[in-house]
Amino acid sequence: MSSNTELLKRREYLLGPNVHVFYDDPVQLVRGQGVWVYDADGRKYLDCYNNVPHVGHCHPHVVEAICKQAATLNTHTRYLHEGILNYVERLMATFQGNITSAIMVCTGSEANDIALRMAQAVTGKTGIIATNHTYHGNTAAVSQLSTTKPPIGGFGGHIRHVTAPDSYRPTGGSAEAHAKAFATEVELACQSLIASGHGVSGIIVCPSFVNEGFPDLHSGFLDGAITAVRKAGGVIIADEVQPGFGRIGSHFWGHEKAGFMPDIVTMGKPMGNGHPVAAVATSLEIMGAFRNAFGYFNTFGGNPVSCAAASAVLDVIESENLQSKARETGDYARLGLKKLAEKHDIIGDVRGSGLAIGVELVLDRSTKKPAKAEADRVVNLMRQHGVLLGANGIGYNVIKIRPPMPFGKPEVDLMLSTLDVCLQAL
Amino acid sequence: MSSNTELLKRREYLLGPNVHVFYDDPVQLVRGQGVWVYDADGRKYLDCYNNVPHVGHCHPHVVEAICKQAATLNTHTRYLHEGILNYVERLMATFQGNITSAIMVCTGSEANDIALRMAQAVTGKTGIIATNHTYHGNTAAVSQLSTTKPPIGGFGGHIRHVTAPDSYRPTGGSAEAHAKAFATEVELACQSLIASGHGVSGIIVCPSFVNEGFPDLHSGFLDGAITAVRKAGGVIIADEVQPGFGRIGSHFWGHEKAGFMPDIVTMGKPMGNGHPVAAVATSLEIMGAFRNAFGYFNTFGGNPVSCAAASAVLDVIESENLQSKARETGDYARLGLKKLAEKHDIIGDVRGSGLAIGVELVLDRSTKKPAKAEADRVVNLMRQHGVLLGANGIGYNVIKIRPPMPFGKPEVDLMLSTLDVCLQAL
Repeated sequence: MSSNTELLKRREYLLGPNVHVFYDDPVQLVRGQGVWVYDADGRKYLDCYNNVPHVGHCHPHVVEAICKQAATLNTHTRYLHEGILNYVERLMATFQGNITSAIMVCTGSEANDIALRMAQAVTGKTGIIATNHTYHGNTAAVSQLSTTKPPIGGFGGHIRHVTAPDSYRPTGGSAEAHAKAFATEVELACQSLIASGHGVSGIIVCPSFVNEGFPDLHSGFLDGAITAVRKAGGVIIADEVQPGFGRIGSHFWGHEKAGFMPDIVTMGKPMGNGHPVAAVATSLEIMGAFRNAFGYFNTFGGNPVSCAAASAVLDVIESENLQSKARETGDYARLGLKKLAEKHDIIGDVRGSGLAIGVELVLDRSTKKPAKAEADRVVNLMRQHGVLLGANGIGYNVIKIRPPMPFGKPEVDLMLSTLDVCLQAL
Repeated sequence: MSSNTELLKRREYLLGPNVHVFYDDPVQLVRGQGVWVYDADGRKYLDCYNNVPHVGHCHPHVVEAICKQAATLNTHTRYLHEGILNYVERLMATFQGNITSAIMVCTGSEANDIALRMAQAVTGKTGIIATNHTYHGNTAAVSQLSTTKPPIGGFGGHIRHVTAPDSYRPTGGSAEAHAKAFATEVELACQSLIASGHGVSGIIVCPSFVNEGFPDLHSGFLDGAITAVRKAGGVIIADEVQPGFGRIGSHFWGHEKAGFMPDIVTMGKPMGNGHPVAAVATSLEIMGAFRNAFGYFNTFGGNPVSCAAASAVLDVIESENLQSKARETGDYARLGLKKLAEKHDIIGDVRGSGLAIGVELVLDRSTKKPAKAEADRVVNLMRQHGVLLGANGIGYNVIKIRPPMPFGKPEVDLMLSTLDVCLQAL
């Protein structure tokens, strides 16, 4: 086993400069099991962060499905195979409305890259609206949606960014005024896109705004914005890469909780428990428009092994009741976090749904000034105390608790007691 | 097991219209082993087509590596892990020049999408040159390089297409004149990109021009074109997704055979024997420019399971001497095909390198008119006779023989005798 110092040096050379690593003192992981991961020194960490190993690190049912299919056949979709059809049929049964068909790909980025083109194909327009602190992936087209760095090659001029919702600091002071302000911004963005000649192909949102600190929004919050987009001829893309597959507890998909019906849904990360599989789902009408305009084929997309992995994930979500477990455990965790807030003034807000939990740290509860440096310090202290989590949100001051779904009450208790110690040590 | 009719109906509904399937009478594959695949009725087919199962369908060493690592840990690169470093180090050792670092991703499309941005980041320009019958992938940015259908959203104006080389119909009548004509076209494309304000970020080529019927080109054929691009300030991208990993027999990479040193190399399909893994490799200078301009992260890219799969593929290529086997078997196959050509006038040209073999069918050897319908008929007849292959090339009249690498002389003999029968039956 190499030391962390050696590995960091080799990374710098082999992977290039500026490759982000978590924690001031990075963790060298060598093994994972359920909600636990182990480093090279045999130290055990409680994983409160990773959503990709959705049904738990190295879940035996998923591993077995991968092994069995990898030993049987792994090929592409230009031959017929039942695997992809059985999986897509099962996946489509989780949707309401007319989301009935899907393209399977390998990453959420690929899914969103297609979703943008589906919107273009069905509307004939190119303009797209996104929130201003979002992340939808890393392809050239999709990275245009990010605001953190101007994309290489420059912005295309066809994007309009609107202010992300912030339930802790609602524009206008109430939930209703907040929703109205969001709708007004979207309406103005539509007008601007039409005036620029790009027209409106649609809006893309993470229904739970996970990268933006998952604000607590009421069902219907997006109604006004959606009406504005539809009126302008655009479609609604729900990026379910983070909220999907039961994580939010109350519903299987984020858009159900948010109370709207998208035209296009993208998904990825948790879908194969770490196996590279993702998808974009839509109506037959939009799928037809895309398939007619573009002869899309993805060599690895929907291969029998990926479908077996994804199918096994659905099996486990069902057999272990992970969605309702996430709801219960999440509620229990938020209750405990709110109790911690009575003791620690730095906790300004506790929010989220199911196992997508945000703990916003502030320097002062009246000014709500983000405690970014403190959030960073807490994250690093927690790592030293054997609990892995991260921080995100608009001010990078929201502790993100988003563990594998088998996370239970004993794990919540450990997370809470460790957080108590770390907040005390600030 | 469902019937093909049922599966085709379900595909139409679940995957959408116009999803391409091979053969007039599609094949429902259920099992693969080495160079053989089996359909739902238990019928055995010789696989002369699939390059993704590079070291053979379901190779036990690769399957074992995947199973072992999937049961141990599968996580992302924001933690430290030796797997990616050991693999990238090993991969980099296959390159000459200053290709020393890599980004691991999931698909060749993702790799090429990055390669285009690397060229932009290091040159500050956006113009790119590609050949006019190529395919480099399916993202919005990369699909701009294809000429078959105008991309959704329209062409960006920053692409210049040059005529793909055709060794069977060389422009100017000789190899030297052909190379010169190609260089001149590239030079004009550079001038046009500079005049348009886009400038020249680079040229992207498959060094073996696989989609364009893999013409037989002499080492150095591209020298003039490369000089022109470099003079205009651009970089050279070699898309090794198809020729790479020893397939061409004489060399490990297509650009080595073509006799040039690229600045950026992309790879994918055969890299993980079907597991979704791909990469883009380049110098530290270009990597640095890209990493500084763009905070690239790929959730699944370089995960320990993908690295284990890719590493196992390299193990097998070495332990089973697959590169030299490809050279021998390929030479033997071309000899046999040339012998078949003495009997069947429709065979106009036999070419290729290693196990990337092209058999160009023509209606008339003097006019060299492409026999497209006949090529399609041969492909379908071969399928009926239990041999899977395809057709591509500029005129879609080149029988493409590109089997898994363990393909041996007995398999060549079976392929040749079946082809003889099918050509006879035309």
